[in-house]
Amino acid sequence: MKLCTTVQEMRQERAKLGTVGFVPTMGFLHEGHLSLVRRAREENEAVVVSLFVNPIQFGSPDDLANYPRAVERDIALLQKEGVACVFTPDAAEFYPDGFATQVDVGGVAQELEGPSRPGHFAGVATVLTKFFNIVQPQRAYFGQKDAQQCAVVQRFVQDLNIPVEITTLPTWREANGLAGSSRNSRLTEEERSRAPVLHQALCRARDLARGGERRRMVLEEAIRDVLVKAGLTEIDYVTVVNPETFQTEETVGETALALLAVKLGAVRLIDNMPLF
Amino acid sequence: MKLCTTVQEMRQERAKLGTVGFVPTMGFLHEGHLSLVRRAREENEAVVVSLFVNPIQFGSPDDLANYPRAVERDIALLQKEGVACVFTPDAAEFYPDGFATQVDVGGVAQELEGPSRPGHFAGVATVLTKFFNIVQPQRAYFGQKDAQQCAVVQRFVQDLNIPVEITTLPTWREANGLAGSSRNSRLTEEERSRAPVLHQALCRARDLARGGERRRMVLEEAIRDVLVKAGLTEIDYVTVVNPETFQTEETVGETALALLAVKLGAVRLIDNMPLF
Repeated sequence: MKLCTTVQEMRQERAKLGTVGFVPTMGFLHEGHLSLVRRAREENEAVVVSLFVNPIQFGSPDDLANYPRAVERDIALLQKEGVACVFTPDAAEFYPDGFATQVDVGGVAQELEGPSRPGHFAGVATVLTKFFNIVQPQRAYFGQKDAQQCAVVQRFVQDLNIPVEITTLPTWREANGLAGSSRNSRLTEEERSRAPVLHQALCRARDLARGGERRRMVLEEAIRDVLVKAGLTEIDYVTVVNPETFQTEETVGETALALLAVKLGAVRLIDNMPLF
Repeated sequence: MKLCTTVQEMRQERAKLGTVGFVPTMGFLHEGHLSLVRRAREENEAVVVSLFVNPIQFGSPDDLANYPRAVERDIALLQKEGVACVFTPDAAEFYPDGFATQVDVGGVAQELEGPSRPGHFAGVATVLTKFFNIVQPQRAYFGQKDAQQCAVVQRFVQDLNIPVEITTLPTWREANGLAGSSRNSRLTEEERSRAPVLHQALCRARDLARGGERRRMVLEEAIRDVLVKAGLTEIDYVTVVNPETFQTEETVGETALALLAVKLGAVRLIDNMPLF
Protein backbone atom coordinates (compact mmCIF):
# COMPACT_ATOMS: atom_id res chain seq x y z
CA MET A 1 0.00 0.00 0.00
CA LYS A 2 1.38 3.38 -1.06
CA LEU A 3 1.19 6.52 1.09
CA CYS A 4 1.01 9.83 -0.80
CA THR A 5 1.16 13.24 0.80
CA THR A 6 1.77 15.57 -2.17
CA VAL A 7 -0.46 16.13 -5.17
CA GLN A 8 2.39 15.12 -7.48
CA GLU A 9 2.96 11.81 -5.66
CA MET A 10 -0.74 11.06 -5.83
CA ARG A 11 -0.92 11.83 -9.56
CA GLN A 12 2.09 9.60 -10.25
CA GLU A 13 0.60 6.76 -8.21
CA ARG A 14 -2.80 7.12 -9.85
CA ALA A 15 -1.23 6.79 -13.31
CA LYS A 16 -0.11 3.25 -12.34
CA LEU A 17 -3.61 2.11 -11.37
CA GLY A 18 -6.47 0.87 -13.56
CA THR A 19 -10.04 1.68 -12.62
CA VAL A 20 -10.10 3.41 -9.26
CA GLY A 21 -12.75 3.46 -6.55
CA PHE A 22 -12.25 6.44 -4.26
CA VAL A 23 -13.35 6.75 -0.63
CA PRO A 24 -12.83 10.31 0.66
CA THR A 25 -12.74 10.43 4.46
CA MET A 26 -11.70 12.73 7.29
CA GLY A 27 -10.05 9.74 8.98
CA PHE A 28 -10.74 8.22 12.41
CA LEU A 29 -12.24 5.36 10.47
CA HIS A 30 -15.11 3.23 11.68
CA GLU A 31 -16.98 0.27 10.25
CA GLY A 32 -19.07 2.60 8.08
CA HIS A 33 -15.96 3.77 6.23
CA LEU A 34 -14.70 0.20 5.91
CA SER A 35 -17.99 -0.88 4.34
CA LEU A 36 -17.38 1.77 1.65
CA VAL A 37 -13.83 0.53 1.12
CA ARG A 38 -15.04 -3.05 0.71
CA ARG A 39 -17.63 -2.08 -1.86
CA ALA A 40 -15.02 -0.02 -3.72
CA ARG A 41 -12.73 -3.06 -3.82
CA GLU A 42 -15.46 -5.21 -5.33
CA GLU A 43 -16.21 -2.74 -8.11
CA ASN A 44 -12.78 -1.39 -9.13
CA GLU A 45 -9.27 -2.59 -9.91
CA ALA A 46 -7.81 -0.39 -7.14
CA VAL A 47 -9.02 1.60 -4.14
CA VAL A 48 -7.73 5.00 -3.11
CA VAL A 49 -8.71 6.39 0.33
CA SER A 50 -8.06 9.96 1.43
CA LEU A 51 -7.57 10.89 5.08
CA PHE A 52 -7.92 14.65 5.35
CA VAL A 53 -9.58 16.79 7.98
CA ASN A 54 -10.58 19.50 5.52
CA PRO A 55 -10.21 22.87 7.28
CA ILE A 56 -12.46 24.82 4.90
CA GLN A 57 -15.57 22.79 5.72
CA PHE A 58 -15.45 23.64 9.42
CA GLY A 59 -17.22 26.77 10.59
CA SER A 60 -15.50 26.99 13.95
CA PRO A 61 -11.78 26.59 14.75
CA ASP A 62 -12.80 24.65 17.88
CA ASP A 63 -14.78 22.11 15.89
CA LEU A 64 -11.80 21.66 13.55
CA ALA A 65 -9.33 21.34 16.43
CA ASN A 66 -11.56 18.86 18.29
CA TYR A 67 -12.22 16.61 15.31
CA PRO A 68 -10.74 13.22 16.26
CA ARG A 69 -7.60 12.03 14.48
CA ALA A 70 -5.76 8.67 14.43
CA VAL A 71 -3.82 8.50 11.18
CA GLU A 72 -1.52 5.61 12.18
CA ARG A 73 -4.44 3.44 13.20
CA ASP A 74 -6.38 4.39 10.05
CA ILE A 75 -3.46 3.42 7.83
CA ALA A 76 -3.16 0.04 9.57
CA LEU A 77 -6.89 -0.59 9.06
CA LEU A 78 -6.72 0.31 5.36
CA GLN A 79 -3.70 -1.91 4.80
CA LYS A 80 -5.75 -4.90 5.98
CA GLU A 81 -8.50 -3.98 3.50
CA GLY A 82 -6.21 -4.22 0.47
CA VAL A 83 -6.28 -0.52 -0.35
CA ALA A 84 -3.81 0.46 -3.10
CA CYS A 85 -3.10 3.99 -2.00
CA VAL A 86 -3.79 6.29 0.96
CA PHE A 87 -3.69 10.02 0.25
CA THR A 88 -3.05 12.32 3.21
CA PRO A 89 -2.68 15.74 1.59
CA ASP A 90 -0.99 18.62 3.32
CA ALA A 91 -3.39 21.50 4.07
CA ALA A 92 -0.72 24.06 3.15
CA GLU A 93 -0.36 22.52 -0.33
CA PHE A 94 -4.11 22.10 -0.77
CA TYR A 95 -4.86 25.69 0.27
CA PRO A 96 -1.76 27.80 -0.40
CA ASP A 97 -1.53 31.55 0.07
CA GLY A 98 -3.69 33.17 -2.60
CA PHE A 99 -6.11 30.25 -2.84
CA ALA A 100 -9.34 31.90 -3.97
CA THR A 101 -11.76 29.40 -5.53
CA GLN A 102 -14.90 27.89 -4.14
CA VAL A 103 -17.46 25.47 -5.57
CA ASP A 104 -20.79 26.86 -4.40
CA VAL A 105 -23.85 24.65 -4.47
CA GLY A 106 -27.36 26.02 -4.23
CA GLY A 107 -30.63 24.09 -4.07
CA VAL A 108 -30.31 21.12 -1.70
CA ALA A 109 -27.24 22.69 -0.07
CA GLN A 110 -29.30 25.65 1.15
CA GLU A 111 -31.44 23.60 3.56
CA LEU A 112 -30.81 22.04 7.02
CA GLU A 113 -27.02 21.69 7.40
CA GLY A 114 -26.64 24.64 5.00
CA PRO A 115 -27.86 27.40 7.34
CA SER A 116 -26.74 25.44 10.44
CA ARG A 117 -23.14 25.28 9.18
CA PRO A 118 -22.47 28.28 6.88
CA GLY A 119 -19.76 27.49 4.33
CA HIS A 120 -19.79 23.78 5.16
CA PHE A 121 -21.08 22.45 1.85
CA ALA A 122 -18.96 24.87 -0.20
CA GLY A 123 -15.96 23.49 1.70
CA VAL A 124 -17.06 19.93 0.99
CA ALA A 125 -17.75 20.56 -2.70
CA THR A 126 -14.46 22.41 -3.15
CA VAL A 127 -12.28 19.74 -1.55
CA LEU A 128 -14.09 16.92 -3.37
CA THR A 129 -13.65 18.70 -6.71
CA LYS A 130 -9.93 18.90 -5.94
CA PHE A 131 -9.81 15.21 -4.99
CA PHE A 132 -11.73 14.13 -8.08
CA ASN A 133 -9.33 16.10 -10.29
CA ILE A 134 -6.26 14.59 -8.61
CA VAL A 135 -7.37 10.99 -8.02
CA GLN A 136 -9.52 10.78 -11.17
CA PRO A 137 -11.58 7.86 -9.87
CA GLN A 138 -14.18 5.99 -11.91
CA ARG A 139 -16.37 5.73 -8.81
CA ALA A 140 -16.59 7.43 -5.43
CA TYR A 141 -18.34 6.09 -2.33
CA PHE A 142 -20.28 7.93 0.36
CA GLY A 143 -22.36 6.89 3.37
CA GLN A 144 -26.07 7.62 3.60
CA LYS A 145 -25.50 8.85 7.18
CA ASP A 146 -24.60 12.19 5.57
CA ALA A 147 -27.74 12.11 3.41
CA GLN A 148 -27.73 15.79 2.54
CA GLN A 149 -24.03 15.69 1.68
CA CYS A 150 -24.76 12.82 -0.70
CA ALA A 151 -27.42 14.92 -2.42
CA VAL A 152 -25.04 17.90 -2.64
CA VAL A 153 -22.31 15.72 -4.16
CA GLN A 154 -24.71 14.28 -6.74
CA ARG A 155 -25.77 17.83 -7.60
CA PHE A 156 -22.37 19.40 -8.24
CA VAL A 157 -20.91 16.30 -9.91
CA GLN A 158 -23.80 16.38 -12.37
CA ASP A 159 -23.74 20.17 -12.79
CA LEU A 160 -19.98 20.34 -13.42
CA ASN A 161 -19.95 17.15 -15.57
CA ILE A 162 -17.31 15.55 -13.35
CA PRO A 163 -16.65 12.10 -14.84
CA VAL A 164 -17.20 10.05 -11.67
CA GLU A 165 -20.02 7.76 -10.63
CA ILE A 166 -21.30 8.45 -7.11
CA THR A 167 -22.43 5.49 -5.01
CA THR A 168 -24.21 5.96 -1.68
CA LEU A 169 -24.23 3.02 0.76
CA PRO A 170 -26.60 2.53 3.72
CA THR A 171 -25.69 3.95 7.10
CA TRP A 172 -23.62 1.52 9.15
CA ARG A 173 -25.06 1.20 12.66
CA GLU A 174 -23.94 -0.34 15.93
CA ALA A 175 -26.14 -3.15 17.29
CA ASN A 176 -27.94 -0.57 19.43
CA GLY A 177 -28.82 1.51 16.35
CA LEU A 178 -26.28 4.32 16.80
CA ALA A 179 -25.06 5.48 13.38
CA GLY A 180 -21.31 5.13 12.85
CA SER A 181 -19.59 8.52 13.12
CA SER A 182 -16.08 9.60 13.97
CA ARG A 183 -17.67 12.14 16.28
CA ASN A 184 -19.07 9.32 18.48
CA SER A 185 -15.57 8.98 19.94
CA ARG A 186 -16.00 12.35 21.60
CA LEU A 187 -19.09 11.27 23.58
CA THR A 188 -18.72 10.51 27.28
CA GLU A 189 -19.76 7.03 28.38
CA GLU A 190 -23.03 8.43 29.73
CA GLU A 191 -23.76 10.33 26.48
CA ARG A 192 -22.93 7.28 24.43
CA SER A 193 -25.47 5.23 26.36
CA ARG A 194 -28.13 7.81 25.46
CA ALA A 195 -27.10 8.35 21.82
CA PRO A 196 -29.10 5.40 20.37
CA VAL A 197 -32.21 7.47 21.14
CA LEU A 198 -31.56 9.33 17.87
CA HIS A 199 -32.14 6.14 15.95
CA GLN A 200 -35.10 5.16 18.13
CA ALA A 201 -36.74 8.52 17.47
CA LEU A 202 -36.36 8.04 13.71
CA CYS A 203 -37.75 4.51 13.97
CA ARG A 204 -40.77 5.86 15.81
CA ALA A 205 -41.55 8.18 12.87
CA ARG A 206 -40.97 5.37 10.40
CA ASP A 207 -43.40 3.10 12.28
CA LEU A 208 -46.01 5.84 12.34
CA ALA A 209 -45.56 6.55 8.62
CA ARG A 210 -45.81 2.87 7.75
CA GLY A 211 -48.94 2.76 9.90
CA GLY A 212 -50.49 5.41 7.63
CA GLU A 213 -49.52 8.74 9.17
CA ARG A 214 -48.70 11.24 6.40
CA ARG A 215 -48.87 14.57 8.24
CA ARG A 216 -45.34 15.91 8.40
CA MET A 217 -45.93 17.91 11.59
CA VAL A 218 -47.20 14.85 13.43
CA LEU A 219 -44.18 12.78 12.33
CA GLU A 220 -41.75 15.52 13.33
CA GLU A 221 -43.50 15.94 16.68
CA ALA A 222 -43.20 12.19 17.32
CA ILE A 223 -39.44 12.35 16.74
CA ARG A 224 -39.06 15.39 19.01
CA ASP A 225 -41.14 13.70 21.66
CA VAL A 226 -38.84 10.66 21.85
CA LEU A 227 -35.76 12.91 21.98
CA VAL A 228 -37.07 15.25 24.64
CA LYS A 229 -38.37 12.43 26.83
CA ALA A 230 -34.85 10.99 26.77
CA GLY A 231 -33.49 14.35 27.89
CA LEU A 232 -32.07 15.34 24.46
CA THR A 233 -33.36 18.89 24.33
CA GLU A 234 -30.58 20.60 22.35
CA ILE A 235 -32.24 19.94 19.02
CA ASP A 236 -30.81 21.77 16.00
CA TYR A 237 -33.43 20.42 13.61
CA VAL A 238 -35.91 17.59 13.26
CA THR A 239 -37.60 17.38 9.90
CA VAL A 240 -39.16 15.19 7.27
CA VAL A 241 -38.29 16.23 3.69
CA ASN A 242 -38.60 15.28 0.08
CA PRO A 243 -35.08 13.81 -0.52
CA GLU A 244 -34.99 15.24 -4.05
CA THR A 245 -35.23 18.83 -2.84
CA PHE A 246 -34.62 18.60 0.92
CA GLN A 247 -37.69 20.78 1.30
CA THR A 248 -40.67 20.05 3.48
CA GLU A 249 -44.18 19.25 2.30
CA GLU A 250 -47.25 19.27 4.50
CA THR A 251 -48.14 15.72 3.51
CA VAL A 252 -45.14 13.45 3.11
CA GLY A 253 -44.68 11.27 0.02
CA GLU A 254 -43.45 7.73 -0.52
CA THR A 255 -39.80 8.80 -0.67
CA ALA A 256 -39.88 10.93 2.51
CA LEU A 257 -36.70 11.16 4.55
CA ALA A 258 -36.61 12.01 8.25
CA LEU A 259 -33.49 13.84 9.48
CA LEU A 260 -32.27 15.24 12.73
CA ALA A 261 -29.33 17.09 14.23
CA VAL A 262 -29.00 17.04 18.01
CA LYS A 263 -26.35 18.15 20.43
CA LEU A 264 -25.31 15.66 23.07
CA GLY A 265 -23.04 17.50 25.48
CA ALA A 266 -20.27 19.00 23.35
CA VAL A 267 -20.96 16.81 20.32
CA ARG A 268 -23.39 17.53 17.50
CA LEU A 269 -24.72 14.33 15.94
CA ILE A 270 -26.81 13.87 12.79
CA ASP A 271 -28.81 10.90 11.60
CA ASN A 272 -31.58 10.16 9.11
CA MET A 273 -33.91 7.44 7.90
CA PRO A 274 -36.15 6.87 4.88
CA LEU A 275 -39.68 6.51 6.19
CA PHE A 276 -40.75 3.85 3.69
CA MET B 1 -14.26 17.10 -38.66
CA LYS B 2 -16.87 15.90 -36.19
CA LEU B 3 -19.70 18.08 -34.87
CA CYS B 4 -20.93 17.28 -31.36
CA THR B 5 -23.92 18.87 -29.69
CA THR B 6 -24.57 16.60 -26.70
CA VAL B 7 -22.25 15.90 -23.78
CA GLN B 8 -22.42 12.18 -24.54
CA GLU B 9 -21.40 12.68 -28.19
CA MET B 10 -18.50 14.85 -27.11
CA ARG B 11 -17.31 12.31 -24.54
CA GLN B 12 -17.47 9.49 -27.12
CA GLU B 13 -15.56 11.57 -29.66
CA ARG B 14 -12.95 12.61 -27.13
CA ALA B 15 -12.28 8.95 -26.23
CA LYS B 16 -11.08 8.41 -29.84
CA LEU B 17 -8.54 11.25 -29.71
CA GLY B 18 -5.02 11.29 -28.31
CA THR B 19 -3.67 14.43 -26.67
CA VAL B 20 -6.18 17.24 -27.08
CA GLY B 21 -5.67 20.99 -27.33
CA PHE B 22 -8.89 22.81 -26.51
CA VAL B 23 -9.92 26.27 -27.69
CA PRO B 24 -13.10 27.43 -25.92
CA THR B 25 -14.85 30.24 -27.82
CA MET B 26 -18.19 32.01 -28.01
CA GLY B 27 -18.02 31.74 -31.81
CA PHE B 28 -18.05 34.52 -34.41
CA LEU B 29 -14.42 33.63 -34.92
CA HIS B 30 -11.72 36.08 -35.91
CA GLU B 31 -8.01 35.78 -36.59
CA GLY B 32 -7.29 35.86 -32.87
CA HIS B 33 -9.24 32.64 -32.35
CA LEU B 34 -7.58 31.06 -35.37
CA SER B 35 -4.13 31.87 -33.98
CA LEU B 36 -5.11 29.86 -30.87
CA VAL B 37 -6.32 26.97 -33.03
CA ARG B 38 -3.06 26.92 -34.99
CA ARG B 39 -0.96 26.84 -31.83
CA ALA B 40 -3.17 24.07 -30.44
CA ARG B 41 -2.60 22.03 -33.61
CA GLU B 42 1.16 22.37 -33.27
CA GLU B 43 1.20 21.15 -29.69
CA ASN B 44 -1.40 18.37 -29.62
CA GLU B 45 -2.54 15.32 -31.59
CA ALA B 46 -6.03 16.77 -31.98
CA VAL B 47 -7.82 20.09 -31.56
CA VAL B 48 -11.30 20.53 -30.08
CA VAL B 49 -13.02 23.92 -30.42
CA SER B 50 -16.22 24.84 -28.60
CA LEU B 51 -18.69 27.40 -29.98
CA PHE B 52 -21.01 28.39 -27.17
CA VAL B 53 -22.45 31.75 -26.22
CA ASN B 54 -22.55 30.94 -22.51
CA PRO B 55 -25.71 32.53 -21.06
CA ILE B 56 -24.55 32.50 -17.43
CA GLN B 57 -21.60 34.83 -18.06
CA PHE B 58 -23.78 37.64 -19.38
CA GLY B 59 -25.19 40.12 -16.90
CA SER B 60 -27.85 41.54 -19.17
CA PRO B 61 -30.28 39.67 -21.45
CA ASP B 62 -29.69 42.38 -24.08
CA ASP B 63 -25.94 41.80 -24.12
CA LEU B 64 -26.56 38.06 -24.51
CA ALA B 65 -29.13 38.54 -27.28
CA ASN B 66 -26.89 41.02 -29.14
CA TYR B 67 -23.76 38.90 -29.02
CA PRO B 68 -22.90 38.13 -32.66
CA ARG B 69 -23.36 34.59 -33.95
CA ALA B 70 -22.32 32.87 -37.22
CA VAL B 71 -22.08 29.15 -36.50
CA GLU B 72 -22.07 27.97 -40.13
CA ARG B 73 -19.25 30.32 -41.05
CA ASP B 74 -17.32 29.37 -37.90
CA ILE B 75 -17.59 25.66 -38.71
CA ALA B 76 -16.31 26.27 -42.25
CA LEU B 77 -13.34 28.22 -40.89
CA LEU B 78 -12.47 25.49 -38.39
CA GLN B 79 -12.70 22.77 -41.02
CA LYS B 80 -9.97 24.55 -42.98
CA GLU B 81 -7.78 24.62 -39.87
CA GLY B 82 -7.77 20.85 -39.44
CA VAL B 83 -9.80 20.83 -36.24
CA ALA B 84 -10.83 17.30 -35.12
CA CYS B 85 -14.04 18.21 -33.37
CA VAL B 86 -16.35 21.18 -32.90
CA PHE B 87 -18.53 21.15 -29.78
CA THR B 88 -21.68 23.28 -29.84
CA PRO B 89 -23.45 22.34 -26.62
CA ASP B 90 -27.11 22.96 -26.08
CA ALA B 91 -27.79 25.50 -23.31
CA ALA B 92 -30.75 23.45 -22.05
CA GLU B 93 -28.51 20.40 -21.56
CA PHE B 94 -25.67 22.45 -20.05
CA TYR B 95 -27.96 24.24 -17.58
CA PRO B 96 -31.01 22.04 -17.00
CA ASP B 97 -33.78 22.80 -14.52
CA GLY B 98 -32.35 22.44 -11.03
CA PHE B 99 -28.81 23.40 -12.08
CA ALA B 100 -27.37 24.90 -8.89
CA THR B 101 -23.56 24.93 -8.94
CA GLN B 102 -21.19 27.80 -9.45
CA VAL B 103 -17.39 28.02 -9.45
CA ASP B 104 -16.67 31.27 -7.59
CA VAL B 105 -13.26 32.86 -7.93
CA GLY B 106 -12.02 35.52 -5.54
CA GLY B 107 -8.77 37.48 -5.68
CA VAL B 108 -8.06 38.60 -9.26
CA ALA B 109 -11.71 38.06 -10.22
CA GLN B 110 -12.82 40.74 -7.76
CA GLU B 111 -11.17 43.64 -9.63
CA LEU B 112 -12.00 45.58 -12.85
CA GLU B 113 -14.34 43.36 -14.90
CA GLY B 114 -15.49 41.75 -11.62
CA PRO B 115 -17.49 44.69 -10.26
CA SER B 116 -18.23 45.99 -13.80
CA ARG B 117 -19.86 42.71 -14.79
CA PRO B 118 -21.28 41.00 -11.66
CA GLY B 119 -21.41 37.22 -12.06
CA HIS B 120 -19.34 37.30 -15.24
CA PHE B 121 -16.26 35.47 -13.98
CA ALA B 122 -18.31 32.92 -12.02
CA GLY B 123 -20.12 32.18 -15.29
CA VAL B 124 -16.81 31.85 -17.14
CA ALA B 125 -15.23 29.63 -14.46
CA THR B 126 -18.32 27.43 -14.24
CA VAL B 127 -18.64 26.82 -17.97
CA LEU B 128 -14.91 26.22 -18.38
CA THR B 129 -14.93 23.70 -15.52
CA LYS B 130 -17.74 21.89 -17.33
CA PHE B 131 -15.82 21.98 -20.62
CA PHE B 132 -12.60 20.76 -19.02
CA ASN B 133 -14.46 17.84 -17.43
CA ILE B 134 -16.14 16.87 -20.71
CA VAL B 135 -13.35 17.51 -23.25
CA GLN B 136 -10.52 16.53 -20.87
CA PRO B 137 -7.87 18.40 -22.84
CA GLN B 138 -4.15 18.29 -22.08
CA ARG B 139 -3.89 21.98 -22.94
CA ALA B 140 -6.29 24.91 -23.33
CA TYR B 141 -5.62 28.15 -25.20
CA PHE B 142 -6.72 31.69 -24.40
CA GLY B 143 -5.99 35.12 -25.84
CA GLN B 144 -4.22 37.81 -23.83
CA LYS B 145 -6.89 40.29 -24.98
CA ASP B 146 -8.96 39.00 -22.07
CA ALA B 147 -6.01 39.42 -19.69
CA GLN B 148 -8.02 39.31 -16.51
CA GLN B 149 -9.95 36.25 -17.70
CA CYS B 150 -6.61 34.52 -18.31
CA ALA B 151 -5.57 35.27 -14.73
CA VAL B 152 -8.92 34.02 -13.40
CA VAL B 153 -8.59 30.79 -15.40
CA GLN B 154 -5.04 30.20 -14.13
CA ARG B 155 -6.32 30.78 -10.59
CA PHE B 156 -9.21 28.32 -10.52
CA VAL B 157 -7.42 25.68 -12.59
CA GLN B 158 -4.60 25.72 -10.04
CA ASP B 159 -6.93 25.93 -7.02
CA LEU B 160 -9.15 23.04 -8.17
CA ASN B 161 -6.18 20.96 -9.45
CA ILE B 162 -7.75 20.65 -12.89
CA PRO B 163 -5.30 18.61 -14.99
CA VAL B 164 -4.98 21.03 -17.91
CA GLU B 165 -2.13 23.29 -18.96
CA ILE B 166 -3.26 26.85 -19.72
CA THR B 167 -1.50 28.73 -22.55
CA THR B 168 -2.08 32.43 -23.16
CA LEU B 169 -1.21 33.83 -26.60
CA PRO B 170 -0.62 37.49 -27.48
CA THR B 171 -3.54 39.62 -28.55
CA TRP B 172 -4.16 39.45 -32.30
CA ARG B 173 -4.52 42.98 -33.75
CA GLU B 174 -5.61 44.45 -37.03
CA ALA B 175 -2.97 46.48 -38.89
CA ASN B 176 -4.40 49.63 -37.30
CA GLY B 177 -3.90 48.19 -33.80
CA LEU B 178 -7.52 47.30 -33.01
CA ALA B 179 -7.60 44.14 -30.90
CA GLY B 180 -9.52 41.25 -32.46
CA SER B 181 -12.91 40.84 -30.80
CA SER B 182 -16.20 39.36 -31.91
CA ARG B 183 -17.81 42.49 -30.53
CA ASN B 184 -16.05 44.62 -33.17
CA SER B 185 -18.65 43.39 -35.64
CA ARG B 186 -21.27 45.41 -33.80
CA LEU B 187 -19.43 48.72 -34.33
CA THR B 188 -20.72 51.14 -36.95
CA GLU B 189 -18.28 52.13 -39.68
CA GLU B 190 -17.69 55.45 -37.96
CA GLU B 191 -17.09 53.78 -34.58
CA ARG B 192 -14.77 51.25 -36.14
CA SER B 193 -12.64 54.04 -37.58
CA ARG B 194 -12.25 55.48 -34.09
CA ALA B 195 -11.72 52.16 -32.26
CA PRO B 196 -7.93 51.96 -32.87
CA VAL B 197 -7.62 54.84 -30.40
CA LEU B 198 -7.87 52.26 -27.60
CA HIS B 199 -4.62 50.74 -28.77
CA GLN B 200 -3.03 54.12 -29.36
CA ALA B 201 -3.87 55.20 -25.83
CA LEU B 202 -2.24 52.08 -24.40
CA CYS B 203 0.83 52.65 -26.61
CA ARG B 204 1.11 56.18 -25.24
CA ALA B 205 1.32 54.82 -21.67
CA ARG B 206 3.81 52.19 -22.75
CA ASP B 207 6.03 54.82 -24.37
CA LEU B 208 5.90 56.98 -21.25
CA ALA B 209 6.71 54.02 -19.01
CA ARG B 210 9.63 52.98 -21.18
CA GLY B 211 10.77 56.58 -21.04
CA GLY B 212 11.02 56.30 -17.25
CA GLU B 213 7.58 57.30 -15.97
CA ARG B 214 6.62 55.09 -13.02
CA ARG B 215 3.79 57.08 -11.42
CA ARG B 216 0.62 55.11 -11.99
CA MET B 217 -1.64 58.16 -11.88
CA VAL B 218 0.37 59.90 -14.58
CA LEU B 219 0.25 56.84 -16.84
CA GLU B 220 -3.48 56.42 -16.35
CA GLU B 221 -4.05 60.11 -17.02
CA ALA B 222 -2.08 59.83 -20.26
CA ILE B 223 -4.34 57.00 -21.45
CA ARG B 224 -7.50 58.89 -20.50
CA ASP B 225 -6.20 61.96 -22.25
CA VAL B 226 -5.76 60.16 -25.59
CA LEU B 227 -9.23 58.60 -25.28
CA VAL B 228 -11.03 61.78 -24.35
CA LYS B 229 -9.29 63.86 -27.03
CA ALA B 230 -10.58 61.28 -29.56
CA GLY B 231 -14.09 61.73 -28.19
CA LEU B 232 -14.20 58.43 -26.31
CA THR B 233 -15.63 59.67 -23.03
CA GLU B 234 -17.67 56.66 -21.90
CA ILE B 235 -14.79 55.15 -19.97
CA ASP B 236 -15.63 52.25 -17.66
CA TYR B 237 -12.08 51.95 -16.33
CA VAL B 238 -8.52 52.88 -17.21
CA THR B 239 -5.90 51.42 -14.93
CA VAL B 240 -2.38 50.13 -14.55
CA VAL B 241 -2.10 47.08 -12.31
CA ASN B 242 0.23 44.43 -11.02
CA PRO B 243 -0.79 41.49 -13.28
CA GLU B 244 -0.28 38.99 -10.45
CA THR B 245 -2.98 40.58 -8.31
CA PHE B 246 -4.80 42.96 -10.67
CA GLN B 247 -4.43 45.57 -7.93
CA THR B 248 -2.98 49.01 -8.35
CA GLU B 249 0.27 50.28 -6.84
CA GLU B 250 1.28 53.94 -6.65
CA THR B 251 4.57 53.23 -8.42
CA VAL B 252 4.30 50.66 -11.18
CA GLY B 253 6.72 47.72 -11.40
CA GLU B 254 8.47 46.00 -14.30
CA THR B 255 5.51 43.68 -14.97
CA ALA B 256 2.85 46.42 -14.99
CA LEU B 257 -0.17 45.93 -17.21
CA ALA B 258 -2.35 48.76 -18.52
CA LEU B 259 -6.02 47.92 -19.09
CA LEU B 260 -9.08 49.76 -20.23
CA ALA B 261 -12.78 49.25 -20.86
CA VAL B 262 -14.54 51.85 -22.99
CA LYS B 263 -17.97 52.12 -24.52
CA LEU B 264 -18.12 53.04 -28.18
CA GLY B 265 -21.77 53.62 -29.00
CA ALA B 266 -23.61 50.48 -27.94
CA VAL B 267 -20.48 48.33 -27.74
CA ARG B 268 -18.22 47.91 -24.72
CA LEU B 269 -14.64 47.13 -25.75
CA ILE B 270 -11.69 46.07 -23.60
CA ASP B 271 -7.98 46.05 -24.36
CA ASN B 272 -4.70 45.85 -22.45
CA MET B 273 -0.96 46.08 -22.89
CA PRO B 274 2.09 45.16 -20.81
CA LEU B 275 4.03 48.39 -20.26
CA PHE B 276 7.50 46.81 -20.51
